[in-house]
Amino acid sequence: MLIQRLTIIGVGLIGGSLARALKRAGACGEVLACGRNTSHLQQAIDLGVIDRYDTHPANAVKNADIVVLAVPLGTMAPMFAAIRDALSPQTIITDAGSAKATVVADARQHLGQHFPRFVPGHPIAGTEKSGVAASFAELFENHRVILTPLEETDSQAVSLVTQMWEKTGANVVNMSIEHHDEVLAATSHLPHLLAYSLVDTLATMDDRTEIFKFAAGGFRDFTRIASSDPRMWHDISLANRDALLKVLALFNDNLAQLAKAISKGDSQTIQNIFTRAKTARDQLTL
Amino acid sequence: MLIQRLTIIGVGLIGGSLARALKRAGACGEVLACGRNTSHLQQAIDLGVIDRYDTHPANAVKNADIVVLAVPLGTMAPMFAAIRDALSPQTIITDAGSAKATVVADARQHLGQHFPRFVPGHPIAGTEKSGVAASFAELFENHRVILTPLEETDSQAVSLVTQMWEKTGANVVNMSIEHHDEVLAATSHLPHLLAYSLVDTLATMDDRTEIFKFAAGGFRDFTRIASSDPRMWHDISLANRDALLKVLALFNDNLAQLAKAISKGDSQTIQNIFTRAKTARDQLTL
Repeated sequence: MLIQRLTIIGVGLIGGSLARALKRAGACGEVLACGRNTSHLQQAIDLGVIDRYDTHPANAVKNADIVVLAVPLGTMAPMFAAIRDALSPQTIITDAGSAKATVVADARQHLGQHFPRFVPGHPIAGTEKSGVAASFAELFENHRVILTPLEETDSQAVSLVTQMWEKTGANVVNMSIEHHDEVLAATSHLPHLLAYSLVDTLATMDDRTEIFKFAAGGFRDFTRIASSDPRMWHDISLANRDALLKVLALFNDNLAQLAKAISKGDSQTIQNIFTRAKTARDQLTL
Repeated sequence: MLIQRLTIIGVGLIGGSLARALKRAGACGEVLACGRNTSHLQQAIDLGVIDRYDTHPANAVKNADIVVLAVPLGTMAPMFAAIRDALSPQTIITDAGSAKATVVADARQHLGQHFPRFVPGHPIAGTEKSGVAASFAELFENHRVILTPLEETDSQAVSLVTQMWEKTGANVVNMSIEHHDEVLAATSHLPHLLAYSLVDTLATMDDRTEIFKFAAGGFRDFTRIASSDPRMWHDISLANRDALLKVLALFNDNLAQLAKAISKGDSQTIQNIFTRAKTARDQLTL
């Protein structure tokens, strides 16, 4: 068995789905969870997602082979500090945070001598839903998991975390922290910002009731991610602030150019932007 | 039978789906199509969507009970001019354009004495795909169709067009032209602009290949509408320019406020925007 004892801190959509996938694959023995809300933790037991729980992080990580932190980015630092002294010298630590620079900085600051066994990770999978009730074993199948190990990261730790994610059906790739944060700002964090901002714009218009009544399928798809957890996305927005504001500036330039073209009736520029976008988007579905 | 002879000008996704739905409902006799591309028209015959075609608009509309214009908005004016003298005094004309002020102005200018029998219409349905091959009879089921008749519009004409759309399974509502154009700018035209602009922004970044490689489900949903027909959306952007630029300005204000909050680390404003948006978006799925 790959993992005798797995501790998952934060059993929501990601933590819960990971536990389900590893149990289904027969890849781990006992799954122990840690969280603050005992009714959520009991629900995770009732659903068969975890075997038991402990609300004290230091107790929860004792004798774990792997500890996975699947908590909001703003909670990573205190959690690293809370578990450090309870970690055994062999325990491998990883996370599922959507931005990597801040998590690595937090880990470096708080994990002490355990830092070389911390493998920063990010499964590129999710839905707009939250909580263990929304978790499912297939979430990571054929999805990518990005690991951003440092030079000092233990190669055996990287290998075990890679194998863990592969057991869920995911494809694991390595990337630099900076590159990860740039790519995710562009493909995930900025779209969430735009979706939240668009829905909030419409929600504060006078005829908002009418507006939402006539929203068709395109609008529903476009804004689905605005149903995501505000706390989680607040943390991501601040954690990846620099990369996010950089790609937002590029987007603002493009949108201003498009608005100017529409205002002036500059058909060529409008057609160019729409056609380049369609060509790029069509390739995604090939 | 509701309609003995139906002429559809422009047999793409919308025109083709309307023909299919009315045939399925046994609501019309002969479906005659008009278009410029004979291979597309032949495809529509081969698929059983239409009965025959004529590439000359004036020939195609002769003796029709209803003529439906399902062509790009920029083509409406010349098409009204091309059919005017061939329309019989009983023929009812309607359209499926996504913006109504310009179509009504075009019809008023070019339809002459037939203008009172023109019923401006807009089915709030579609996909990011184009062409008759993408058409299907169920497209309008449980979707809304907005009609924006004027005071001078013949009430029998409105009644027949209403019945026609109801035969497709759609719910027909009436609205003022101005209100239609504002609501659609907010729920459809602006989202398309943002999706096109975001994809174009990423498509012109240095690491675009990597970026699109790591695009997950959220990004795919968010940008699906950027695969829509550039020509059609070029026309919509210009036809509904005023309402579109107005709601875009509101969006830009909201996004700038959010960007400023992220830049300053103003958690409360970020949380407020995200939470208001989630609340509004969640209500859409109830």
